[in-house]
Amino acid sequence: MQAKFQELKNRLIEVNDINAAAGVLHWDQSTYMPPGGAKARARQTATLSRLAHEKFTDVAIGNLLDTLTPYEKSLDYESDEASLIRLTRRKYERAIKIPAKFMAEVATHTSESYQVWTKARPANDFERVRPYLEKTLEYSRKCANFFPGYDHIADPLIEPRDFGMKAADVSRVFSELRKELVPIASAITSQPPADDSCLHKHYPETQQLDFGMVVAKKFGYDLNRGRQDKTHHPFMTKFSLGDVRITTRSKEDSLGEALFCTMHETGHALYEQGINMDFEGTPLARGTSAGVHESQSRLWENIVGRSKGFWNCFYPQLQKTFSEQLLPVSADEFHRAINKVERSLIRTEADEVTYNLHVMLRFDFELALLEGEMEIRDLPSAWRERFEADFGIVPPDDKDGVLQDVHWYFGLIGGSFQGYTLGNILAAQFYTSALESHPEIPNDIEKGEFQTLHNWLRNNIYRHGSKFTAPEIIKRATGKPMSIKPYINYLRTKYGELYSLN
Amino acid sequence: MQAKFQELKNRLIEVNDINAAAGVLHWDQSTYMPPGGAKARARQTATLSRLAHEKFTDVAIGNLLDTLTPYEKSLDYESDEASLIRLTRRKYERAIKIPAKFMAEVATHTSESYQVWTKARPANDFERVRPYLEKTLEYSRKCANFFPGYDHIADPLIEPRDFGMKAADVSRVFSELRKELVPIASAITSQPPADDSCLHKHYPETQQLDFGMVVAKKFGYDLNRGRQDKTHHPFMTKFSLGDVRITTRSKEDSLGEALFCTMHETGHALYEQGINMDFEGTPLARGTSAGVHESQSRLWENIVGRSKGFWNCFYPQLQKTFSEQLLPVSADEFHRAINKVERSLIRTEADEVTYNLHVMLRFDFELALLEGEMEIRDLPSAWRERFEADFGIVPPDDKDGVLQDVHWYFGLIGGSFQGYTLGNILAAQFYTSALESHPEIPNDIEKGEFQTLHNWLRNNIYRHGSKFTAPEIIKRATGKPMSIKPYINYLRTKYGELYSLN
Repeated sequence: MQAKFQELKNRLIEVNDINAAAGVLHWDQSTYMPPGGAKARARQTATLSRLAHEKFTDVAIGNLLDTLTPYEKSLDYESDEASLIRLTRRKYERAIKIPAKFMAEVATHTSESYQVWTKARPANDFERVRPYLEKTLEYSRKCANFFPGYDHIADPLIEPRDFGMKAADVSRVFSELRKELVPIASAITSQPPADDSCLHKHYPETQQLDFGMVVAKKFGYDLNRGRQDKTHHPFMTKFSLGDVRITTRSKEDSLGEALFCTMHETGHALYEQGINMDFEGTPLARGTSAGVHESQSRLWENIVGRSKGFWNCFYPQLQKTFSEQLLPVSADEFHRAINKVERSLIRTEADEVTYNLHVMLRFDFELALLEGEMEIRDLPSAWRERFEADFGIVPPDDKDGVLQDVHWYFGLIGGSFQGYTLGNILAAQFYTSALESHPEIPNDIEKGEFQTLHNWLRNNIYRHGSKFTAPEIIKRATGKPMSIKPYINYLRTKYGELYSLN
Repeated sequence: MQAKFQELKNRLIEVNDINAAAGVLHWDQSTYMPPGGAKARARQTATLSRLAHEKFTDVAIGNLLDTLTPYEKSLDYESDEASLIRLTRRKYERAIKIPAKFMAEVATHTSESYQVWTKARPANDFERVRPYLEKTLEYSRKCANFFPGYDHIADPLIEPRDFGMKAADVSRVFSELRKELVPIASAITSQPPADDSCLHKHYPETQQLDFGMVVAKKFGYDLNRGRQDKTHHPFMTKFSLGDVRITTRSKEDSLGEALFCTMHETGHALYEQGINMDFEGTPLARGTSAGVHESQSRLWENIVGRSKGFWNCFYPQLQKTFSEQLLPVSADEFHRAINKVERSLIRTEADEVTYNLHVMLRFDFELALLEGEMEIRDLPSAWRERFEADFGIVPPDDKDGVLQDVHWYFGLIGGSFQGYTLGNILAAQFYTSALESHPEIPNDIEKGEFQTLHNWLRNNIYRHGSKFTAPEIIKRATGKPMSIKPYINYLRTKYGELYSLN
């Protein structure tokens, strides 16, 4: 059995290596590749993806999993071996249901769709990309239908990103959250907006990036196993547990851009760097779900990085770095600026409070489209209506409306957005539990020390990689299933103070 | 037949894509990868190499080649299709003779050997790496013996790098060259050495790199399809015909380091960028041999980049860039400094004249080792003796003697060095032919214009990629087989003037 288990592991490592190579190709494409490389790079990436899929869906892996079933049953559920077999079976059984030919078709289609979108968005031309999006919706339904027996057609699309959550679960949580969120958002946005002009002076790039890395290192990002590079759409990527990289972007007229982006990606990177090194090369060696992953980026970016305590410690340093720009700005003014809440058009630029309303809009539309309750051609007008209802403003165009996010134009419709808000909810839930165990954490943060928090997160979440599902991790780490209470408490306390709400 | 040909091409492109991915992994490892990534990266690269070998030696490719034989015969020898089939057959027939198990063993061994060498060299400890080198020699002999029927045991090892040359051919050319070279070297080095102190002031890195790129672009390096990054051991690498990159290194106390390195790698890159774009993804899309490739790096670095005419144009610009350091230095003094000839220890730092003596020593030793005329344990003393005989100086240690080059410690013994000197010979032969067609080239160079030369090289060499063998390319481009005469003429004229030889 040990030999069979090792054979399974070797095959999984081979698949992992091909995927890691594809990851390096993608990182390179997003950071350093000259434009002339684009055409061949698309082909190379497609070749690797196809190979990885072929290798992973090889019937030999299915046979090994069957052979190993009694072995798995003889082991403790929590053992690394049983967990690897369990997780591999789940992923294998999903993978073999999607025909390779379908995957190749979708890959070709989404890559064309993406190309058209990159032109349609600046031209504010939804019609141009509409036929592609209609095809994407067809593919999305077809993909879901490879998994008959679902409760909701979105379930099979949510599954690979947020295993353990169904459309109905997400809808329920979102509607609870919405009820609490809307009054908070209204109470804040009925007040005069915070003054964030101090963030929009001229801030030279190099100092911005350097300061971001000072913070990332303080958080615990290990540069012996990571690095930061510049890109257009920042992301975290991992080639092995020894090589977990982040990317960022900066605007010289916006101090927040690079800094919070770096904190955000660092949160993702801390998760991956914190995984048990024994898992290297196997499917266990990655974060367990989109929601839990996003909880870490949001925890470090928002709960830590936009807190008063954090800036009590770091603002003097920042002020020293940008003395001319920040000398007249007090720590309180700065803290208010970086926590400005406003009804704005763009999801990725939204504040902590209104952000979730952007996500809910998209999630609800995904369900409606998949259910057939909404047509692609209705999207632009539906977007404007819903946006007006939720935000009290009408997007002046589709560019900053339905065309703003890449997700639907470069992938399937369904399952792509819920993780962002699940992440916000979970960030607060995890942080609250960490505080229960270690009430000294806020004091530590004020001293610029993050080890206690980092250790708690590593021990309770990071090190497990994908050994446990998101619901299992949440239960183990916080003693409870997912709950919006800690998040609502967090928002009420923080923004209650900032905006003197009652 | 068209369908069969297309199937062959698709399979070759798949192999190419895997190899290109391995190339990106290697580039990343040599430029940006954090140290923690090393262990997994070695495994990932090995996985890709194994996959590419498996795919290329698939019996389906052999069957396609057989099926396509009549088609090939019906085509013009010079047609792209016939050339692709011919080249693929040659490479396929070689590849299937080397067992995958042997390749994997050698890969593991050389990677261990390399690790030991990186420690043994700074420690000046040949004994430490000796057992590895002995094993390497065994593997090298074993590899050669997969190709019985050779004239010399080194022939099968020379073949993949310099197809069309046998050990006896190289030996003959080298001994002719040696006869001419030794008196020239002696005549020069019996004079007082040139003063190159002007190159060893403080030269900030950024300006050095920027100046190098100005020159590279002037040569014709297309940055839409390329870029330069820093590394320890500079190289050129290609991921597709749309993405041909160079790397360089700089020393702030040496003006020559980055500049000539950039010119050298640019020469390699111009070759690859100049290949017919229709060949993309196939085995035709690369330079035809080590010797012809090196001829291009040496042509641009030495024949162009160290010429009086080039610096008549570029020295004022360089002087402006480094005004403090170079103001007191005349163009003539600078030209003498960058062409200093001296008997020195290190091959890679050697001048144009003595460089070949370094190469010949290594080539002769490779033959002697493979023949069994020399033992690995004799290498250090044999090196010292031969070095003293050739250079009149004894290396003070093994570090800068037999341990200096990575080649034997990270690959097989045999075939790794001859290309450098073949490159010097061919650079002069190609340049001389270009001049016969376009006598205006030296005037162009003096005006900083390189298009006529670049076009001649592209039309006669670059665009063909690997369609023709090195002997075929030489014959087509210069009308003659390889000859040392143009090189000797070049050296006599250039160094005759510089050192007032008669």
